Amino acid sequence: MSRIPDETTSALGAHLYELVAELTPAMRSITGNGVRRTLATVRRALDPAVPLTVREIPTDTPVLDWTVPKEWNVREAWLAGPDGQRILDVADHPLHLVNYSAPTYTRLALPDLAPHLHSLPDRPDWVPYRTSYYRETWGFCLPDRQRRALAEGEYQVHIDTTLTDGSLTFAEILLPGSGPLEFLLTTHVCHPGMANDNASGIAMATLLAGALADRPRRLTYRILFIPGTIGAITWLAHNRHAVEQVEHGLVLTGLGDRGQPTYKRSRRGDAVIDRAATRALKETDRPHHVVDFSPYGYDERQFCSPGFNLPVGRFGRSQHGEYPEYHTSADNMDLVTPESLGDSFAIIMRTIEICERDRTWTNTSPFGEPQLGRRGLYRSIGATLGRDAVEMGLLWVLNLADGTNSMLDIAERADLPFDTVADAADALAAVGLLT
Amino acid sequence: MSRIPDETTSALGAHLYELVAELTPAMRSITGNGVRRTLATVRRALDPAVPLTVREIPTDTPVLDWTVPKEWNVREAWLAGPDGQRILDVADHPLHLVNYSAPTYTRLALPDLAPHLHSLPDRPDWVPYRTSYYRETWGFCLPDRQRRALAEGEYQVHIDTTLTDGSLTFAEILLPGSGPLEFLLTTHVCHPGMANDNASGIAMATLLAGALADRPRRLTYRILFIPGTIGAITWLAHNRHAVEQVEHGLVLTGLGDRGQPTYKRSRRGDAVIDRAATRALKETDRPHHVVDFSPYGYDERQFCSPGFNLPVGRFGRSQHGEYPEYHTSADNMDLVTPESLGDSFAIIMRTIEICERDRTWTNTSPFGEPQLGRRGLYRSIGATLGRDAVEMGLLWVLNLADGTNSMLDIAERADLPFDTVADAADALAAVGLLT
Amino acid sequence: MSRIPDETTSALGAHLYELVAELTPAMRSITGNGVRRTLATVRRALDPAVPLTVREIPTDTPVLDWTVPKEWNVREAWLAGPDGQRILDVADHPLHLVNYSAPTYTRLALPDLAPHLHSLPDRPDWVPYRTSYYRETWGFCLPDRQRRALAEGEYQVHIDTTLTDGSLTFAEILLPGSGPLEFLLTTHVCHPGMANDNASGIAMATLLAGALADRPRRLTYRILFIPGTIGAITWLAHNRHAVEQVEHGLVLTGLGDRGQPTYKRSRRGDAVIDRAATRALKETDRPHHVVDFSPYGYDERQFCSPGFNLPVGRFGRSQHGEYPEYHTSADNMDLVTPESLGDSFAIIMRTIEICERDRTWTNTSPFGEPQLGRRGLYRSIGATLGRDAVEMGLLWVLNLADGTNSMLDIAERADLPFDTVADAADALAAVGLLT
Repeated sequence: MSRIPDETTSALGAHLYELVAELTPAMRSITGNGVRRTLATVRRALDPAVPLTVREIPTDTPVLDWTVPKEWNVREAWLAGPDGQRILDVADHPLHLVNYSAPTYTRLALPDLAPHLHSLPDRPDWVPYRTSYYRETWGFCLPDRQRRALAEGEYQVHIDTTLTDGSLTFAEILLPGSGPLEFLLTTHVCHPGMANDNASGIAMATLLAGALADRPRRLTYRILFIPGTIGAITWLAHNRHAVEQVEHGLVLTGLGDRGQPTYKRSRRGDAVIDRAATRALKETDRPHHVVDFSPYGYDERQFCSPGFNLPVGRFGRSQHGEYPEYHTSADNMDLVTPESLGDSFAIIMRTIEICERDRTWTNTSPFGEPQLGRRGLYRSIGATLGRDAVEMGLLWVLNLADGTNSMLDIAERADLPFDTVADAADALAAVGLLT
Repeated sequence: MSRIPDETTSALGAHLYELVAELTPAMRSITGNGVRRTLATVRRALDPAVPLTVREIPTDTPVLDWTVPKEWNVREAWLAGPDGQRILDVADHPLHLVNYSAPTYTRLALPDLAPHLHSLPDRPDWVPYRTSYYRETWGFCLPDRQRRALAEGEYQVHIDTTLTDGSLTFAEILLPGSGPLEFLLTTHVCHPGMANDNASGIAMATLLAGALADRPRRLTYRILFIPGTIGAITWLAHNRHAVEQVEHGLVLTGLGDRGQPTYKRSRRGDAVIDRAATRALKETDRPHHVVDFSPYGYDERQFCSPGFNLPVGRFGRSQHGEYPEYHTSADNMDLVTPESLGDSFAIIMRTIEICERDRTWTNTSPFGEPQLGRRGLYRSIGATLGRDAVEMGLLWVLNLADGTNSMLDIAERADLPFDTVADAADALAAVGLLT
Repeated sequence: MSRIPDETTSALGAHLYELVAELTPAMRSITGNGVRRTLATVRRALDPAVPLTVREIPTDTPVLDWTVPKEWNVREAWLAGPDGQRILDVADHPLHLVNYSAPTYTRLALPDLAPHLHSLPDRPDWVPYRTSYYRETWGFCLPDRQRRALAEGEYQVHIDTTLTDGSLTFAEILLPGSGPLEFLLTTHVCHPGMANDNASGIAMATLLAGALADRPRRLTYRILFIPGTIGAITWLAHNRHAVEQVEHGLVLTGLGDRGQPTYKRSRRGDAVIDRAATRALKETDRPHHVVDFSPYGYDERQFCSPGFNLPVGRFGRSQHGEYPEYHTSADNMDLVTPESLGDSFAIIMRTIEICERDRTWTNTSPFGEPQLGRRGLYRSIGATLGRDAVEMGLLWVLNLADGTNSMLDIAERADLPFDTVADAADALAAVGLLT
């Protein structure tokens, strides 16, 4: 794997942006046909040779401490005002309906309706995203400006949803590598109608799968499209064996906004994925954030629960909850850009590349320096080496390759680019000086 | 145990101040009736139900590398000038006599007297505190202004002390807890006539004993009133078994001056007491000092000697030797304030509370997050959590409670108030999610 | 060993400067008579009682991954211009000839000569130092100003060198100590015609040998005069047993320029030599550098190769490659000063002294403080100790001498001068309180 040329990144950014636009509008939830339609879009966007397996786990299946909930589907849902006009309709925007609203057909006066309405007083034009998965209720979300203008009178609630035994749907793509260790890439497919969170994650995982399918792989890649929380828990419950093979992992979400790229460390804090992502970001020479693990956020909460404690970090741009558009109708195609999407793709691929190339070599000639000159690896007229000379990589690798230092360790101690070190190791291995 | 309300702290400060005023004037030393009278004052200040045991260890008893010295008592001691007038009298201030001065009745000219006089040229109005426990001599301490004005002529020395076989006196209060581990609180009772050093320590230990006697206790509290150095050595020599139970400890001294609260770490540096005191101070959100251990100061020198190496820190305000009034007659009731005394009390109690509550729990449902919603521990309508939400404490505790992290560890890593973490753990334990 | 008085340092600086001046001009290389003549100068500069052993290792001897090269000697070497005048002559400056130039007698036009000429365009008046040990070629080095002025026409190359089976020459001085552990001091003897690099190193090692021969020694000192790289490799190949005894080591080079003293850490980074040199520099209270190990530089590359990983650092002043005169004819007697040479000597001796005195004692009376007063080690009238009091050293040593802390550990934790700590330990050992 090599660095991705800028033109490729740019073309990928445009491609990602299109796919985000296609994925954004759907009404999704943690179960139901919205997820299935989303996975069908993913399937269409992939090369037919890439294997996408869709799984259905029945309602009431015990999964770790939880059980798979009833399946929820929406036929139609609207609120009509005293004058009979529909003032909110889920057909206009999926966020208008509180996600998992129970079927409800009623008429009630404004004061009785009020507890079922959700808006954002400090963002009067935006519709918030609200859910009630585990307590049966119903509600509508609307701009605060509209809410404040509601007239007294009787309102008609028409929520034609189903909440029935069914299943929870998720998908995975498995791309075998030459070795058994796995790199887990996961993204959540439950958020409706929002571009950055998380059409961007779904599009990114899809195009990463395509790119990884086309390359030689030391690691096996497992790419999950799962509903948040319950989907991660369901997958973990059904994949105890796969979990043991997870050597690296990334949760992908919020990859298209204009914020700086951000890596959130795994619970371990110093896993290879933590160091690889940090280095990939550092070597961009552009502003970025690396933040510590916390048990709040996305599915890293589950992968990094103490029983699993997987080396899974999270990559995205602006942090959830720290940009105003987060979890509102303002998370739309204006919030995301092809440039940010392409940049995120490049950083993720670079992180993957470092994980692929990171290994621990041993110098076969550790007593004194081996004579590099007779192996064609050292200039013949003696003069001073610059800090960036190829020979510096060779000397650092020979010096530190004592079986305890990985390529990442050496790059960090030598303060050299990872590729300088990894290329030096390849050159030394080619002449038998590393094993 | 809960946080101490401000009005309680204020009342305690006033109470402490009164007791300091009562304790200050006495002539004390490392042995003798001054200590016994001081312990009698402590006894009167305590609720009769609190057990205070007074011990007498005979002169010449071997204690570690030392032996218990002769007992010293003062009947009267004065210096009269050439005109026969008494110019210094221990009845006026106990610091006028070099502590442990041998009985001396003589007349001598000023030049011969001079080596026996001690004053502070740079503090001409203050009387210094001087001792000579282990070399038999005698002397007087006086303001430098007075010393410089002494007329030539013959002076009369009348030091009517006794230095005889007797005993060393100390006291302890034992407040059993529900478990065997001990919290050691010690203060020195040998310093005569000074308010901050150490009437404040004696008063503080007395009122802490009262407060602790009234509360449920996981730990056993052992509160020592001991002469400095030789008292600590004597106690250690006679309590080898108790020493093994010491899980936390604080040396208390200099608790009433206007300086910032200061914690001096134990020799270990990272014992629970070190972290608990640091956190208690940090959570005051007010200026304070935490300083490293050094083998100089008060009885932490003995408790932290390498053979014992106990987790015993020291709490006080201005550091000994770093305020001009230290070890002089200016260490009087003007130097101490009810506010500082009350504040010191609150910080010590808070440190104790953290030690009481610090423990290591294990998540009983470590694979994925347990479903908090069905246990009534998580809000039902999904929205973003603030950093200070109660749920944050729950998530952090669940994530880190893997049997290796204590409440202090979790509070430090999560950067949450200790009580948020400890309260979350109590809530989780109540529903069986921690063991 | 005690601190070196300033007047001694000054006299030593003058003495070193004279010896550098005597050593600088020689044509040296990694083999041949230049090295032998240099070692003869060293021999003459030493007291006859100091044993200097010269070794000759035959050409083609396998040494680690290398073989000893052919021996190179120069009879004469010059370049004559189209007018028959000699324009470059190695007799004028040894840098004019590319080191290890093969015997060559030819005439050729300027364009054909050009690839064999080396100069420094940005330093037009200086002659660079160039070598070609392991590829048979030839060449001349000259000021760029002169090179640019060369006329068209035919030039005569007369390089009367020999490159034949012979041997590689090095020398060592062994000064046995009372114990088996060794302190290795090494310097390279292959650089021709330059004062700082490395006549200064050769002179320094010579005078250090003299100073060390005159002192009691706990450590055994082995002082090597070796050609760079191949000499270190040859010595390592022939001294596998000695290597195991190396407890500390310093590579000495570039000791006379006006730059700040600089210590480069061993590969281990925290060996006693690393801490001793750092402390010696810190206690000078003058600007200095301590830099991390890198596998580029001088013979620390070999001593710190992963198979040996010896605790060998490097001491000098300006770093190689970071001053413009490095490896040019401008590295002459104007670049070095007696003051810098004397200062380097004092710092090295101080580093050695710390290594000599560093040891780990155990307090024989670890329970409580031992009573220092009755052993005459503590003032009798109690008053406050200053931070610098002798007693502070005693208290720190007693507190930390638990069998795990060396004198260096204690000096670092107590932030006291090394000698305060080591002197305190001597005093305590004298009364049986340390073992």
